[in-house]
Amino acid sequence: MQPVIDYLRKNQRRFIEELTEYLRFPSVSAQPAHQKDMLACANWLADHCRQIGLEAEVRSTKGHPIVVAKTPARPGRRPRYLVYGHYDVQPPEPFELWKSPPFEAKIVGRRLFARGSADNKGQNLAHLKAVEAFLKTGTDLPCDLTFVIEGEEEVGSKHLADFLKSHRKELACDAVVISDTGMPAKNLPALTYALRGIVACEVTLRGPSRDLHSGIFGGAVDNPAMALCQLLAKLRDANGKIAIPGFYDDVLPLTAFERKQLARLPGSDREFQKFLGVPKLFGERGFTSTEQRSARPTLEINGLTSGYQGEGSKTIVPAWARAKLTFRLVPNQSPAKIVAAISRQLKKLCPPTVRLEIEAGHGAEPYLMSPTSTEAKAALRALKLAFGREPVLLREGGSIPIVNDFKKHLGADTVLLGLALPEANAHSPNESFDLDCFARGQEMSAYLWNEMARR
Amino acid sequence: MQPVIDYLRKNQRRFIEELTEYLRFPSVSAQPAHQKDMLACANWLADHCRQIGLEAEVRSTKGHPIVVAKTPARPGRRPRYLVYGHYDVQPPEPFELWKSPPFEAKIVGRRLFARGSADNKGQNLAHLKAVEAFLKTGTDLPCDLTFVIEGEEEVGSKHLADFLKSHRKELACDAVVISDTGMPAKNLPALTYALRGIVACEVTLRGPSRDLHSGIFGGAVDNPAMALCQLLAKLRDANGKIAIPGFYDDVLPLTAFERKQLARLPGSDREFQKFLGVPKLFGERGFTSTEQRSARPTLEINGLTSGYQGEGSKTIVPAWARAKLTFRLVPNQSPAKIVAAISRQLKKLCPPTVRLEIEAGHGAEPYLMSPTSTEAKAALRALKLAFGREPVLLREGGSIPIVNDFKKHLGADTVLLGLALPEANAHSPNESFDLDCFARGQEMSAYLWNEMARR
Repeated sequence: MQPVIDYLRKNQRRFIEELTEYLRFPSVSAQPAHQKDMLACANWLADHCRQIGLEAEVRSTKGHPIVVAKTPARPGRRPRYLVYGHYDVQPPEPFELWKSPPFEAKIVGRRLFARGSADNKGQNLAHLKAVEAFLKTGTDLPCDLTFVIEGEEEVGSKHLADFLKSHRKELACDAVVISDTGMPAKNLPALTYALRGIVACEVTLRGPSRDLHSGIFGGAVDNPAMALCQLLAKLRDANGKIAIPGFYDDVLPLTAFERKQLARLPGSDREFQKFLGVPKLFGERGFTSTEQRSARPTLEINGLTSGYQGEGSKTIVPAWARAKLTFRLVPNQSPAKIVAAISRQLKKLCPPTVRLEIEAGHGAEPYLMSPTSTEAKAALRALKLAFGREPVLLREGGSIPIVNDFKKHLGADTVLLGLALPEANAHSPNESFDLDCFARGQEMSAYLWNEMARR
Repeated sequence: MQPVIDYLRKNQRRFIEELTEYLRFPSVSAQPAHQKDMLACANWLADHCRQIGLEAEVRSTKGHPIVVAKTPARPGRRPRYLVYGHYDVQPPEPFELWKSPPFEAKIVGRRLFARGSADNKGQNLAHLKAVEAFLKTGTDLPCDLTFVIEGEEEVGSKHLADFLKSHRKELACDAVVISDTGMPAKNLPALTYALRGIVACEVTLRGPSRDLHSGIFGGAVDNPAMALCQLLAKLRDANGKIAIPGFYDDVLPLTAFERKQLARLPGSDREFQKFLGVPKLFGERGFTSTEQRSARPTLEINGLTSGYQGEGSKTIVPAWARAKLTFRLVPNQSPAKIVAAISRQLKKLCPPTVRLEIEAGHGAEPYLMSPTSTEAKAALRALKLAFGREPVLLREGGSIPIVNDFKKHLGADTVLLGLALPEANAHSPNESFDLDCFARGQEMSAYLWNEMARR
């Protein structure tokens, strides 16, 4: 491995220049005006893959193209891993909040500022640089690699699942590796082994056929806004425990090992409370804040709408009231089962004085890879070798639906090795990527293939 | 009385022409463009009062003027009654929904269509025609009368209280008579003897300092929208009984006589439910629909606002949630005491995870005149004489704050003798006044002075 590591260390300046070039494309997938930039970026990326010795193609989809690059075919059987990334970026707006132009990388200290630097160009380029080091130094790569770098992650990966499905055979692999999440601190490398799922629904209660004069009618007709409050209030207790029969049935309990790992994360509750600006923290009894927000399911009201919302008052009984709800799910809860349980309970609790409408929205399965699996252990060893520190095991509270697509269509687990620091400002002005994380990430990727393949 | 009644019956055609003239003024108090029309209408009204034999003046205020007209001074002591009405009207918009121009009276069958016909020009003109009949036939009027017809009723009677206060002596009276409410049906004359009061407040719960990502933070931070639902849910039970300590302390129970009277009102619960369009009626157990919506206090949520309300979903824990509330009050609840009780209870129930803000809004006292008082009995006799039917006793669920001003500043009770039918469309396009109600109303007013004065 020494030649690979040496190669990486010797070429950092060039790698940073290449990242700067990659970041120059305003590859904003959400904005039709950037269609040409999207294609130019994909072409640049495929060219770059070819330059480092991969076989690369720009594959068209019904949306933005996907860059597929592979290590050259060799005789013999080796494990194959798929590295996923995306070359599209979030819109840079509002421009006026950027301290330097979003598509001209600017280095301040060890931070490189540009839109897409952390999310995700810097992270996927780190993996490409690692394979370049193997190929250019003639070091034996103990596995075959396929890179799938798409252009629609920031707009919901609309065409990725279809692509995986129709290229199931070509993209077959033993595991997927993604660096598109975060790490808690520069000296705290992390493996994310679980994600929460989600299910959304909209609940509307309809009462009278129109807003009524509260003086003339109030008292003899139920108030849909109050009925909604009373209905929703019954779904969650005062500590965040969800009161829907069967809701927790499929929840895998945290193991003692996991709880010990999650407890290693830095930061106090006091700091966390101050950061949020709340008068007091909240959550299910018997769990730490970290567990509550990453390893426990939740019910959130995302929005409430009813009646008059302008200045002053309007003395009405509103005709209807609506709530937007999302439930964060944890392994092994199923969005479909949870939606059914919610609907059943809402129907059971809804008073006869109003009409209940439930509209189920998007859903995503939760994700769990055993933190003691051979892949997880290999990833942890690679992180330790690259960063020189004991890595932490993370659960993330959000959802990454594509991870479930890889499981569903390719049958492969995903190892999430995020390289973005909390201060990276992904999706915000002044996004940055730490150049030490870039360098350590390249080494982590290099070690990873050795550790994964030797399992 | 026969000459008075004969005079009224003989002159109906002219009275309708005069009403048509009165209705021609677009006296829209809310719209500054009609300032001149307001003054022209007030002048026409004062002139008309003079023509029928009253002493009339247009009195300026800081807003629109008030027309004050009195029966000529006579030697001897008689009771004095004050007749209140208003010459201003609601805006006619939307014009396109009117079947005939709003300020050109059109008669279809026995209904006269025009803005202000029922609310309130037709009703106050009926009282003027009654006194005209006394004066023009030389019939002894057994009381003195003062008409106070203002121009700001539709914009909250902003300057009336001050006017009453500063003319307390001039306007002193034994009772106030107002025809500005409704009667249940053409063959069902009514005396309204009670009104509900009101108190408004806005409740805001603030959680985190900004909307939070529900994936990253949800579970360890309370959701202000859910906290609001749980807080409001505790203020009312499933049948509409309000769960605020002390809330019912000052409520005067309905007497057996009142309940018997209210039970005489026509209309079935089935019809009422259909009219409202609700799947089921609602309300406090042990009370009829009529009692629930006129004689019992209520809590209504008039509006709910929190988080994301647009299309689709947004996965946030909203930073805050707000509800607009109004409470309808009944005799002898006090708005100030009720606001204090609400605030106390909200503070007691609010969880420590959110910050509570309460903003108290407008309030109005409830009103009650004994339905067995001499004035009430006189009014009931006058209604029966004019309509030839047994009148009903009504409580109205809405508030008419000026009634409390008359009580407060002049010490006088108000007799509410509404002449508008449920189909009158007050405040809506195609407002109408029934010409039989107009004619019966004139006779009722004529009988009233005899009945009131002979008590």
